Amino acid sequence: MARRLKLTVAYDGTPFDGWQSQRPRNTIQDHLERALYRVGGDRVRVHGSGRTDAGVHALAQCAHVDLESRLTAPQWTKALNALLPPTIRAFRCAYVSKTFHARYSAKRKVYRYRIWPGPVLPPMEYRRAWHVTAALDFDLLRKAASQFVGTHDFAGFAAKQGKSSGPRQSSGSKENSTVRTIYSARVRKKTGAITIEFEGNGFLYKMVRLMVGASIECATGKLSVKEITEWLASGGRESARFTAPADGLFLVRVRY
Amino acid sequence: MARRLKLTVAYDGTPFDGWQSQRPRNTIQDHLERALYRVGGDRVRVHGSGRTDAGVHALAQCAHVDLESRLTAPQWTKALNALLPPTIRAFRCAYVSKTFHARYSAKRKVYRYRIWPGPVLPPMEYRRAWHVTAALDFDLLRKAASQFVGTHDFAGFAAKQGKSSGPRQSSGSKENSTVRTIYSARVRKKTGAITIEFEGNGFLYKMVRLMVGASIECATGKLSVKEITEWLASGGRESARFTAPADGLFLVRVRY
Repeated sequence: MARRLKLTVAYDGTPFDGWQSQRPRNTIQDHLERALYRVGGDRVRVHGSGRTDAGVHALAQCAHVDLESRLTAPQWTKALNALLPPTIRAFRCAYVSKTFHARYSAKRKVYRYRIWPGPVLPPMEYRRAWHVTAALDFDLLRKAASQFVGTHDFAGFAAKQGKSSGPRQSSGSKENSTVRTIYSARVRKKTGAITIEFEGNGFLYKMVRLMVGASIECATGKLSVKEITEWLASGGRESARFTAPADGLFLVRVRY
Repeated sequence: MARRLKLTVAYDGTPFDGWQSQRPRNTIQDHLERALYRVGGDRVRVHGSGRTDAGVHALAQCAHVDLESRLTAPQWTKALNALLPPTIRAFRCAYVSKTFHARYSAKRKVYRYRIWPGPVLPPMEYRRAWHVTAALDFDLLRKAASQFVGTHDFAGFAAKQGKSSGPRQSSGSKENSTVRTIYSARVRKKTGAITIEFEGNGFLYKMVRLMVGASIECATGKLSVKEITEWLASGGRESARFTAPADGLFLVRVRY
């Protein structure tokens, strides 16, 4: 009888074409499905908590898969890591109830965005941070990011194409809504890098990168904090214009 | 009239064939010489403080070059970074006296080695740490590394081929000697990784990786601390057998 396996995986997004399966089959989902097939012998479908775009990293993305297998969960972890590329790692496998769904059961997600200020981007930060050379007002950055906290219609902070990468209720109630709740927006300075961490009940397509883009525009004097609040109140009639690059974005955690 | 320019550069060693110029010209030195030629129009020779092997990283390697140029030092930094690959960065350029020599004037070097203990190597640590899955005794690791502090004949902790990457007096007095002084060996646990940092007046070929290899062998119970002290006292008659991989090694600083 098929059992449901929950996977917690980390990846460096740089060498892959994002999460979602597509030709030439160099996505995270494709690599996972290939490794699962080579271990278990069955073609299986991996369901992620949501997509991540090309270049976006994950410290703990979650997914599930239904399979028939006599392997224990720790044996799956070992077997998958023996076959996956070193820039994708299965941290933990666990058999879960069939009521668990990586996407629909997700309650909260945490995303971190890394920014590197200053004239020179260290080589070890290449593809892992957004290099911002313009002078940044750190207090304004903090103030701008904090505007997103609360329940808002984020239609103005979503890219038009693509689908929501956030969790939805299995009833589908949330899928067509652009209302989301952001519980916290933490801005920190940390050994050179600036990080902005958002925790929310779901995120629309490119929402984090649009929030970060607007926050950085505030911090560099190109946008006022008032404009952010107006855009949030406009319900999508006014939209953020600037998307921060994918390389700085990390999916940190999915909470169930 | 030619002036001497001191370069402070950082690099991710992963995509390059080490420091020292060689075909197919994908070394750090080759990339620097190519960028200097494209900016200044002259074929120049870059002199590093020492070589680093393929895969070894640098946070602040130093080098010098003699050139005829009207550019200011900050203009050189900008121009070089516009031409260098993003995984090599010039952090600072400065005109210095002709008595300065990147190699012969170096007084001390600091090397850091990163180790990742535990069953799974995070994707973001790939090529940046040595993944050690065997159980490590942290106190033994500290004790083992501390044995190297002091002035010793490190002949037993040097690879036979290749040349010293350490500084030498222009008289050449030190070049043929395998005696070096290690001022400190700091072992730290830091958000998952273990780092071992050595500061010394010079390092023989592969010396850091051989010291780290022996220290890890102690920490995993394959070697006794006493054997390290005996090898150090043997003046090269007994040699370390295990070289830690290049990926975990960082040249942190060169002191003049």
